[in-house]
Order: sequence, then C-alpha cells, then structure tokens
Amino acid sequence: MWQKFLDRFLNRFVRTGTLEASFPDGTRGRYGDGSAPAVEVRLTDPSLLRRMVLDPDLALGEGYMEGGLTIAGDDLRGLMTLALRNLQQQNAGGRFAALTQAPGQVLRWLDQLNPAGRSRRNVAHHYDLSGRLYELFLDEDRQYSCAYFRSPNDTLEQAQRAKKAHIAAKLLLRPGMRVLDIGCGWGGMALTLARDHGAHVLGVTLSEEQHRVANQRVRAAGLEDRVEIRLADYRSVTGRFDRIVSVGMFEHVGLPHYGTYFAKVHDLLAEDGIALIHTIGRSAPPSRTSSFIRKYIFPGGYVPSMSEASRAIERQDLWTADVEVLRLHYAETLRHWEQRVSANAAEIVALYDERFLRMWRYYLIASEMSFREGRQCVFQFQLSRKVDAVPVTRDYLYRSPATLRVVADEQLAAE
Amino acid sequence: MWQKFLDRFLNRFVRTGTLEASFPDGTRGRYGDGSAPAVEVRLTDPSLLRRMVLDPDLALGEGYMEGGLTIAGDDLRGLMTLALRNLQQQNAGGRFAALTQAPGQVLRWLDQLNPAGRSRRNVAHHYDLSGRLYELFLDEDRQYSCAYFRSPNDTLEQAQRAKKAHIAAKLLLRPGMRVLDIGCGWGGMALTLARDHGAHVLGVTLSEEQHRVANQRVRAAGLEDRVEIRLADYRSVTGRFDRIVSVGMFEHVGLPHYGTYFAKVHDLLAEDGIALIHTIGRSAPPSRTSSFIRKYIFPGGYVPSMSEASRAIERQDLWTADVEVLRLHYAETLRHWEQRVSANAAEIVALYDERFLRMWRYYLIASEMSFREGRQCVFQFQLSRKVDAVPVTRDYLYRSPATLRVVADEQLAAE
Repeated sequence: MWQKFLDRFLNRFVRTGTLEASFPDGTRGRYGDGSAPAVEVRLTDPSLLRRMVLDPDLALGEGYMEGGLTIAGDDLRGLMTLALRNLQQQNAGGRFAALTQAPGQVLRWLDQLNPAGRSRRNVAHHYDLSGRLYELFLDEDRQYSCAYFRSPNDTLEQAQRAKKAHIAAKLLLRPGMRVLDIGCGWGGMALTLARDHGAHVLGVTLSEEQHRVANQRVRAAGLEDRVEIRLADYRSVTGRFDRIVSVGMFEHVGLPHYGTYFAKVHDLLAEDGIALIHTIGRSAPPSRTSSFIRKYIFPGGYVPSMSEASRAIERQDLWTADVEVLRLHYAETLRHWEQRVSANAAEIVALYDERFLRMWRYYLIASEMSFREGRQCVFQFQLSRKVDAVPVTRDYLYRSPATLRVVADEQLAAE
Repeated sequence: MWQKFLDRFLNRFVRTGTLEASFPDGTRGRYGDGSAPAVEVRLTDPSLLRRMVLDPDLALGEGYMEGGLTIAGDDLRGLMTLALRNLQQQNAGGRFAALTQAPGQVLRWLDQLNPAGRSRRNVAHHYDLSGRLYELFLDEDRQYSCAYFRSPNDTLEQAQRAKKAHIAAKLLLRPGMRVLDIGCGWGGMALTLARDHGAHVLGVTLSEEQHRVANQRVRAAGLEDRVEIRLADYRSVTGRFDRIVSVGMFEHVGLPHYGTYFAKVHDLLAEDGIALIHTIGRSAPPSRTSSFIRKYIFPGGYVPSMSEASRAIERQDLWTADVEVLRLHYAETLRHWEQRVSANAAEIVALYDERFLRMWRYYLIASEMSFREGRQCVFQFQLSRKVDAVPVTRDYLYRSPATLRVVADEQLAAE
C-alpha cells in the first residue's frame, strides 16, 4: 500500500528532471520529464516507503543517514537539486499559498518556543559537539557562518576574513568603543574587532565548549583587557554598548521571541549606536524549517523572511539603515565545508561513526543546495536608533580601512 | 469649550520643546518644557479650535494655508519639528501600539482602494497641475522624486543626475535592453536610460500633462526610435521586459493593491530580468498617511513600511537582491524644492493664488521635516526572478560606468 502511495506522490511531485527509483521489492519506477538532473536512488529499507509518504523531508535525510536509501554515484547534490526545483515549481503556482499555512504557523510557533532552559539544551545539542569536529571543516578562525566571497576563487580563509572586514566596516568602529557580540561562537569576531579595531568586546554564548575555547584564545592572544567572553543568555545582559554585532545567532531565536530580541538590541544600544544582525533568511513566504534539520541539527531554529524580521524591527523604534542580501555566498561556504569534511572523513568516523558522517554530509549538502537553488540567503540588517548614525550613502563600505586592509594583506601575501 | 479641550490636548501633547499660542479671544497659553525649538503661533480663526481638537494634522495644514494660523517669523520648520518630536515621543513608549491600530487599518484600507478610474482622478489631481509650476521648483530634468546627494554640497541638478546614475547601475543595463518605466513622469528617466545606456524604453503614466510633455521631449531629443511614452495604467501593459524601473510611483499604489503590483512586475519581467522599485517608506510601524496630504496633495497615497512591501514581494516568487534605505536625501531634495518655490513665489501666486502658494510650501516643508526627523525614508528594492541575476557583492555599484560617468562629467565641468 505505501509503495503505491509513494509511487503516486512521486508521479505528481517530479515534474522537472528525472528520478529513477528501485524499491525494496525489486520493482522500479521512473519519474519526471527526462531532463537533467537525472538521479538514480535505491530504497532497501521497507519502512522508508511509509516514512517517505508521511514526511518526505525527514525520511530522505534519515534514509541517507541510516543507509536505507543510496544514490548512484552518491550524487546527493543532484538529488537535492531535483527535490528543490520541483518544490519550487509547486510553490510558484500558489500565490494564495499563505492562506493554507495557518496550521503550519501554529506548529512553527511551538517548534520555536525557546525559554532560557530550552535554548541552552538546543545550543548544547549542536555547539558542544567535539571541538575537533569543527576544527576539521571550518577555517582557521572557526567562523561558523556565511563567508563573503569577493571572488569565486577566494579561499575559505580569505572569504571569512573578508566577511569580518565587511561587518566591521558596517559597524563604523572607532578605537575604544564598547561592542556586544551576541552569540560569539569560538570568539573569532570578538578577537578580530579587539585586535584590528581597538574595540572592547563582550561576547556571550550559551555553549560551554565555545565559552571554554574562546577564553583560551583570548588568553593566548593576550587580549584579556579588551575581550570578555561570558557564558550567558543575551537576555541577561545589561548596560549600553556603542555597537552590537550578532552573526549566525538570530536563526536560533525563533519567531515568538523576535520582539524580545529586537527590544533587547534597542535597549542595549547607545543613543548613537549601530547594530549589525547577520542571519540566514528566506526569499519565499514563511514556511516550516526542514524537519530533518530541526530533529538532528538545529532544534528550535527558524529561518525568517525579510518581512518577518523587519516587522519585528519596526515595532522597536529602530532604524533599518541598510539590508544586504547575500545570495550564493553560503552555498560556496558550505561547499568548502563539505569538501573539508570529505577530505577528513576517516578522522570524523573515528571521532563518531559512519552514521554521523553521513548525517553531517547530508546537512551540509542539503543546506548548500538550498542556498544554490535560491531557497535561502543571508540578510545583514544594519540598525540604529538615530536616523543619521550611519552615513547617507554606502560608498564608505567599499573603501573602508577594514576592507582595504584585507585587500592589502592579500596583495602582500601574493607577492 | 473647544478652547479648553485644545488647551488640555496641548498640555498633554507638548512634552519637549516650547509652544506659545495666542487664541482668537486674546488669551495666551504656554506649553512644553522650555527647551528648543521654541515656536509662537497665533490662532485668529475661532473654527480652528474645534478642528484642531478633532483632526490636528488636517487643521494645522488648513490653518496655515487659509491664514487662520500664523507663525512668528513664519517658522513652519520649527513648528513641524516640534510636532514631529512630540509625536515620536508618544509613539516610543507604545510597543503595543500595533494592537490599537485595528480601526486605523480599516480606514487606511478604504483610503487606498484605487481601481483604475480612481487612480486616473488621483493622478490628475496632482500631476495635471500647470507644467509651469513644476518647472519653477524641480531640476532641469523634472525629476519629481528623491535625489541622491553624494555630498551635502551637491546642487539639486547634480544630485538628480547621481540618482539616475545610481538606479541605472542597479539595473545593470546593456545596450538594446527592453526597459519598462512604471510611472515615468515627464520622461526624464526614460530619456536618460535610452540616451546614456542604449536602452529601448516604454514609459507609462496616467497623467495627460506628463504624457504630452514627455512625448515632446522624446521628439526634441530625436529618440522616437528608442522611447515610447504611453498614457496607460501599468496594469494594462503586456509583454516581457529585461528591466523594470519604477520611481516614486509605488506611493500611489495603496496597500490593497501591493499583490497586484508585484504580480505584474513579476509577470512583465524576463526570466533573468532585474527590477528597481524606488519608493518613499517609513521606519515606524504602519500608520495612516497625513490627512492634510491625503486631502490636498496625494489622494489615495500610502507610504509603506519595509515589512509591508517585502511581505507582498515574498508572495510573488521574486528575489529581493538588495534594499537600500536612503535616509535624509529626501529632506535635502525637499529643502531645495522649497527654496525654489520661495524664490519664485510671485510667479506662483500669479499662476494660482496666495492660498495655493501656502498649501504648496506647507506640503514641502511638512514633508521635509518628516524625512529630517526620521519619520520617513526612501527604499530602493532591487528585485529579480533568478537568484544570480544580480552580482553577489555590491562593489559594482560603486565603480559602475554610470556612476563613474557622473563623477567624470562633474570633474570636467569643474575644470
């Protein structure tokens, strides 16, 4: 019965591209219009038939991770492209899609209720994984967020340096300024802003592992007088800061807490302050986050659309001075990460196991393709309390000392 | 009775700055905290007492226009600053302001129902005014929208040229491209894109006066083979365009029609096309447009917040590739316009009358102060259908041929 349902579902769903599937009972099916991408999958676990019908997103990920679903040539990128393009086609017709989303909205809301205790557990789930794992696929500064590729030939290290310089330029930093870094990760941004821009930085994280590593790095850099890393929820921070930066943290906040988040940003920001919020975003109308990603990778996470974020910002008496939409940069970043994961596959299997490696590769590749197919992007919201805190043209971003320093350093390195 | 109400209202409303008022019966009142700005007004028309209580926004404008309200030193900028700062203060406390806005939302909706017939009448109300009037206060190219001041010392003519160059750069034009200009005004943008960038432009306007003048200019420039100006509603246009530009027209669309507007932009845009929508916006949560402006200047108009515009864009399967928020540029533009109106006051009185002159100055100065005090701004939404239609960094905008040409022309002119 489930095989019949799945066959019917695939017949309706695959309109573009080609999918060849072999089922556990040995029968085969062919779907789509014969065009590229052409992908061949083998289902060997009979329980996947039912699971694919009920929650295709979760079952696809679990099938790949557990080995019940294999792809010819391990062409996971091809399979994700096929899935995303057909999903896109189905959405494109539905201008009234928003009307059908009410039940989904309630579920989304529940997914994202993140009181402080649950936030800590959600964070521990991901960021307290072995530090060695992150060393094996991130750049040397452990930037675990979208890099900024000024050229497709940039290395990951160059692109992450360029990202930090671009953000520093948007913050219009002056030496001695007090900066709050909400969700400071392993401290790379805080160290850069203190070392290269003379800022005094308070970084907060909920991850014990990140807190420990970041503190080690601060001591190693001899920057204890200018950088403090605190194991704390951003909602507990008090005081006033000249600048606030938050990179790759807003994705964990959840829609029900956007008001709290931006109210806190407003209240912690000095009267002539500037904040830069860097977050994954979506171009399409709001929808639920992938159930695989929610279950295995980022519990409690939610990717906002521009209207969802800006609606919350408008209510807090904050100016949006600029919104940059970084398209495709995260696809490139994820491609680099996955390359490093594959290059270090043996060590990751030794750290965890084969299943973990497949889960991690599925997460990175599914995410990469979602950015490449234009389902997701990154928003950089530059915010202020005063209308004139930020220059009235954006020229300064493209000739700022921070940007020019990165260019100069690279030219020196190339010589 | 009404004087007592007005006195009580002013006592509650004026928290910052100083207002001295003299009433029709000769009594006087003093409001505020004694700080700047200090403004002195004289009310001589007894009917204004009631009207100020019931609709202060409308009564203030009408009082100034009809002469029943005069300001010491004709300091209308001071009075508007005082009013806007106190309005701002009252809003700042109200994080739950949105909850109280439901009745306002219904009224806003009705204000903005603009079927084609009403759109034509609304447009005629403003844009079919004597062409001579617009000649007297706009720049030489009749750009009736926010200019782009790269320096505060720019002349209005320079800033309007820079605006067109900036928009052209965002459109990434190549010679021979088909461009649609929705709301083309007197044809300045269409002529520039055809002459300087080799584009083939269809401009549409609902104003007979603009249509007549724009066609004259096309013939005078000998560009009939590359520019067509059509007296038409944008909703009647069919076909596909490589680029769509719409400057200062979206303000007239009205919230109930945002879906139609962006669906039309989507459908008229080529698969790899780019659209640039330039519109007045607000940073604060949605609220009703000034009743004076609605009654006398722009019937049917509505200024969107970023979330209102982006919500409509997201639903149409369009990518927002970039959002620039032009702050303060329109304050400068309006200051230039008002200076030219004042310099040509005698001729405007001869064209119309004293009342019209005062109405026009009130409109320009109230608008200028609303931008200067950070109540309003301009959004430039750069849209596309494909994720990679626009370069992945914004560097190209700051070294584009269009931008560089403006800089070069000015350097040549200065020599």
